[in-house]
Amino acid sequence: MSTPNQALRQAAEAARNAYADARARYSREQLAETVAMGADGTPTMRIDEIVECAIVASLDGAPVNILSEETGWLDNGHAATLVVDPLDGSANGAAGVPLTAFAGAVCIDGEFTESLTVWLDTGRSWSASATEAPAYRTSGRTQLKGAAVSLLRPHPGKPSVDAWWAVANQAARVRILSTSCLEAALVAEGATDAFLDAGTDTHRLVDLAAAVVMVTAAGGAVVDSYGRPLVFDTDLTRRWSGVVAASPDLAAELAEVVRTAAPLVENASTP
Amino acid sequence: MSTPNQALRQAAEAARNAYADARARYSREQLAETVAMGADGTPTMRIDEIVECAIVASLDGAPVNILSEETGWLDNGHAATLVVDPLDGSANGAAGVPLTAFAGAVCIDGEFTESLTVWLDTGRSWSASATEAPAYRTSGRTQLKGAAVSLLRPHPGKPSVDAWWAVANQAARVRILSTSCLEAALVAEGATDAFLDAGTDTHRLVDLAAAVVMVTAAGGAVVDSYGRPLVFDTDLTRRWSGVVAASPDLAAELAEVVRTAAPLVENASTP
Repeated sequence: MSTPNQALRQAAEAARNAYADARARYSREQLAETVAMGADGTPTMRIDEIVECAIVASLDGAPVNILSEETGWLDNGHAATLVVDPLDGSANGAAGVPLTAFAGAVCIDGEFTESLTVWLDTGRSWSASATEAPAYRTSGRTQLKGAAVSLLRPHPGKPSVDAWWAVANQAARVRILSTSCLEAALVAEGATDAFLDAGTDTHRLVDLAAAVVMVTAAGGAVVDSYGRPLVFDTDLTRRWSGVVAASPDLAAELAEVVRTAAPLVENASTP
Repeated sequence: MSTPNQALRQAAEAARNAYADARARYSREQLAETVAMGADGTPTMRIDEIVECAIVASLDGAPVNILSEETGWLDNGHAATLVVDPLDGSANGAAGVPLTAFAGAVCIDGEFTESLTVWLDTGRSWSASATEAPAYRTSGRTQLKGAAVSLLRPHPGKPSVDAWWAVANQAARVRILSTSCLEAALVAEGATDAFLDAGTDTHRLVDLAAAVVMVTAAGGAVVDSYGRPLVFDTDLTRRWSGVVAASPDLAAELAEVVRTAAPLVENASTP
C-alpha cells in the first residue's frame, strides 16, 4: 500500500469481508447489541465495531491517518487522511436488510480528492476522483417538483418534520432506504434525483465525505441546508443536514425548502 | 413443464432474463414510458410490458392459467392459475434503483399453494409451500411499538396520511423501499417486522398472493386493514390495504391502527 487511494481500496475490501463474516457468525440480536459509544456520540453496535476494527487493522502501515465513525481520529502523522464510514446502514446490516455500504474518501490538506463507495451486500462499487469525470452521471434534474427523492425517516413531534413533509409533498417518488452512502451513490449514477437529511442535523462528515467527491464529479452537488461548509474536521460530533442532489440547482432548492420549513434556530433547540 | 410449480420457476427465470436484457437495451426514459393501460387499471411502463411478455411466452404450453398485472386473466382451461406480479417495483427498475422483484403464487381451487419471490437485481429467491415450513422464519414480533416497518410512500392531503403517520409514529424504524414483494420477503425472513399499505387501497392480488403463502408459512400473517378476505379473483381492479406482518398479533394491531386512523368509508370517497 504505497498510496492513500490503495489504502482506501484495502479498507473497503476489509469491510466487505468483515461484514460477510459477522453476518454469518452472529445472530441479529448479537449484531445489534450496543457495545460502546462511538466518537460521533452515538451508540456503536457490535456489527459496526467488527467492521471498523477490520478496517483499522487492514490499514496498519498504510500512509494515511484515519477518521472513522466509532474510533474517531487516528493521527499517524501523514498528510493524507481516510474519512471512513465503515458500515453505513448499520441497522439494516444487523437485521438483514441487504442495504449497507462502506464509504470512504481521501482528504489531503483539507481537500477531498478520491472516494470509494461499496454496496457491501453485493460488492457493487462506485469510485471517483475530484479531478476526473467518472463513467456515471447524475440525472441532471434541476427541480424538486417531479423528482425522486430519498430521505431519512421522519421524526414525529420535531420541528424538522415540517421540512420532511415539505419535501415529500412535492416529490414524485419518496424512498427511505436507511443507508445514506448507498442512496448518495444512486444519486451519483442517476437512479434517483436526490437524497437528504431534511433538517435533523443527523449527518456527520463520514456520511457525506464520499458523496462530496462522487456526486460532484458526476455533475451533482452536496450542500448543507443551513449553508454550513462541508469541511474536514476531526471532531465527529459536528453535524450537518446534508443535501445530495443531481444538480446544483436542485441542491439549492431542496436546501431552501428545508431551511424555510425548519429554520436552524428552532431545530437547534431540539436535542 | 409438467407441474404448476415448475411453471412458476420457469416464469421467474424468464422475468429475470427479460429484466436484465431490458435494462441493458433501453434508456431510463424508454423503460419508464407508458405504453398501455394494464388490467389492474394503472399505466403499464415499457419495462413492465417487456417482463410480462417474456413470462407469458415462457408459459406457452404450461398447465396453468395466468393472472398477471398488465394482461389480466388468461384462461387456458386448467385447474391451476399462476398469480403473477411480473415486475414489482417498476419505478425502481426503470430508474435503476436495484430493488425489484418477480413474485408469483400457484392458486388451485381458490387456495394459494406455492409461492416464489425473486429479487431480480441479485437473483436471490424465497420459495414457499402452504404445507411445509420454509428454512426462514419471521422475527415473531407481536407489537408495533419498537417494530421495524416498511410502508408505501405517504400521500399528503388524503385521509390515509393519518394512518401512515399513526404507524410511523410508533415504529422504531421506518423504510420505504418501493417494492412490496421484496419487502414482504424481508418480513418472511425476519429482516424486518412488517410491511403495509397504510389505508390507501393500493394493493392488488398480485402484490399480496406470494406473501400469503410465504409469510404465513414462515410464521407471520397477511391481512387487509379493513377485514376484507384476500381471495382469488380474476378482476385485478379489486384493491386491498394489505398488512404483511411477522405474527398474527402484529398484523391485527397494524390493521387496527390503520382502520382507526383512516376509516374505510372516508377513504373510499377519495379517488
